[in-house]
Amino acid sequence: NYKELDKIIVGVCGGDGIGPAITAQAQRVLEYLLKEDVKAGKVEFKTIDGLTIERRAAEMAAIPPAVLEELKECHVILKGPTTTPRKGDEWPNVESANVAMRKELDLFANVRPVRIPEQGIDWTFYRENTEGSYAVGSQGIHVTEDLGVDFTVVTSQGCERIIRAAFEFAKANGKTRVTAVTKANIIKTTDGKFLDIFREISKDYPDITADDWYIDIMTAKLVDEKRRRDFQVLVLPNLYGDILTDEAAEFQGGVGTAGSANIGKRYSMFEAIHGSAPRMVTEGRDKYADPCSVIRAAAMLLAHIGYNTEADKLYKALDICTITEKKMEITGRDTGCTSAEFADYIMETVEKLD
Amino acid sequence: NYKELDKIIVGVCGGDGIGPAITAQAQRVLEYLLKEDVKAGKVEFKTIDGLTIERRAAEMAAIPPAVLEELKECHVILKGPTTTPRKGDEWPNVESANVAMRKELDLFANVRPVRIPEQGIDWTFYRENTEGSYAVGSQGIHVTEDLGVDFTVVTSQGCERIIRAAFEFAKANGKTRVTAVTKANIIKTTDGKFLDIFREISKDYPDITADDWYIDIMTAKLVDEKRRRDFQVLVLPNLYGDILTDEAAEFQGGVGTAGSANIGKRYSMFEAIHGSAPRMVTEGRDKYADPCSVIRAAAMLLAHIGYNTEADKLYKALDICTITEKKMEITGRDTGCTSAEFADYIMETVEKLD
Ligand SMILES: CC(C)[C@H](C(=O)O)[C@@H](O)C(=O)O
Ligand SMILES: CC(C)[C@H](C(=O)O)[C@@H](O)C(=O)O
Repeated sequence: NYKELDKIIVGVCGGDGIGPAITAQAQRVLEYLLKEDVKAGKVEFKTIDGLTIERRAAEMAAIPPAVLEELKECHVILKGPTTTPRKGDEWPNVESANVAMRKELDLFANVRPVRIPEQGIDWTFYRENTEGSYAVGSQGIHVTEDLGVDFTVVTSQGCERIIRAAFEFAKANGKTRVTAVTKANIIKTTDGKFLDIFREISKDYPDITADDWYIDIMTAKLVDEKRRRDFQVLVLPNLYGDILTDEAAEFQGGVGTAGSANIGKRYSMFEAIHGSAPRMVTEGRDKYADPCSVIRAAAMLLAHIGYNTEADKLYKALDICTITEKKMEITGRDTGCTSAEFADYIMETVEKLD
Repeated sequence: NYKELDKIIVGVCGGDGIGPAITAQAQRVLEYLLKEDVKAGKVEFKTIDGLTIERRAAEMAAIPPAVLEELKECHVILKGPTTTPRKGDEWPNVESANVAMRKELDLFANVRPVRIPEQGIDWTFYRENTEGSYAVGSQGIHVTEDLGVDFTVVTSQGCERIIRAAFEFAKANGKTRVTAVTKANIIKTTDGKFLDIFREISKDYPDITADDWYIDIMTAKLVDEKRRRDFQVLVLPNLYGDILTDEAAEFQGGVGTAGSANIGKRYSMFEAIHGSAPRMVTEGRDKYADPCSVIRAAAMLLAHIGYNTEADKLYKALDICTITEKKMEITGRDTGCTSAEFADYIMETVEKLD
């Protein structure tokens, strides 16, 4: 319970590319919504700068150790996108900062809500966030020059905690169905374990319908406009969660419209789920970057630390500003409104809700 | 070149569940289209019965050895769906017959076309079919009771042959773009190898645009109605091919509407991509099962063995019968027309095309 803390420290880690620009706007919105508690010293913002690809490449670290120390001094973190080098581009092969942060801070639950109210869609994805195909991704083996092996690793405890979190969320929020997504007919050991544990844990929740589908057919089910609204809470091993949430977010308006919560026992991190768009920066267009996704992440952060009223206002304002009122007119990507103007518009809209 | 053979032997392997019923109808259509060459002894159909879950369970074999021998006596195979036991259902844990057949007959290219002419969509998926996450799926390791590991295994040769097949298909069919789909930022060893080889091979095809995307964002791109039609040929490691083709088929009207070609150097197998629907059989409704997918597979088989005129007629008839004319009226699932009546309707439609 965060409200019992003397002071909640909110780390704001801009990342790189357009990250610092959009995250700064999300921070403005947060400061506005929390202004009294900030004044009273109950909430403190802490800017964490060093998580840039330049510095990570220089130190050849997914997260430079000094930055990790700073992150660990916060209770919750708002994070902008960070560049993950791609094969063949200019950067050396440093690991994904996202993936490293999930592991270092043990943020085992990646929670991604996707809502399309006008279609009756209200999905919450619980993606396992620390193991599976991401567990030892970087330590695959070139057995010979011509034979490569990667590993998928899961533990019973890792499966249990994410599956239980999904059921607990369902129970606390009046949801009546939790769906597991695996490929247990083929990936038998690890997905099989996930599915076995899912079925076992589901017995503790007799009022909730528990069903499961394979990931291939599940990507088709999300397309089916007649039946997809019946899904409520979905729980998935890491890689399938990665895949299915991008598809789901696209129905909501694109990966740029979704936020993502990374929750652990001790730390939590809230992030935009799009990339760092470095080209916008080199072309001097970063002040026009769309801050929606990271502002949505900020709303999730507010709810998580117990500012539910403020979170609800922000969600409402986001819906008004991005969906209901003038979707295409306002987002930077489509016209020429800046990130700051969008944040202003959000704050004005919140003001009017009062 | 099949036409140079004295006789082409077409194996018809019904599988189980609704498989035998729908496959029999596809065979009727094939016999009708090839009637002269059948009469002249140039094409022979060979029925292969034993690939049922009952027999596979009794012998505890993905494919009973005697059935495998029969399959190997054919040049091409038309296959109905086969039941893969699911965790917790009545059958013992025998392996998927599909997956076993792909490996035993070395059918390395799983080719799945998805066309939606009215939307300008004409995708061809080249899914690697013998390795990747399917390579040793059943031999994952329970390191301890609480720690499970699965393996993804690829070889350079395995990547090369599927990627080259995709580019050769593109070249032969006037396609201008081939897209690789991986998760090489995380699954670095195996997907990294796939992507490296893709980039290397693409240099041999300077007239074809080669690009690549990660599987997560790719599932979103297929949803984007404005841009998705730009994709032409896609080449993917086994698991991503499994996932993305189901999503793609759903846009075309459901996995039940798509056919799948499994091509190797020596053998080829064409199959429906839906399941065996055993409940339709126990409820006595198998004669109403929708034979579209396996008839589409039959059309792919015709094209593959060089009967292009006949294949084109069958594709046209399928389009007329399922899409253009009376989609909802005719398919067994929605009204009460039997598989045989649907096959009749297809043949009448072909007749009229002449
Ligand atoms: C950037 C990438 C490493 C990351 C992932 O694969 O998890 C992203 O796709 C996500 O979903 O947060
Ligand atoms: C039935 C199953 C083993 C199979 C697969 O995973 O390949 C199916 O989904 C397919 O796509 O042909």
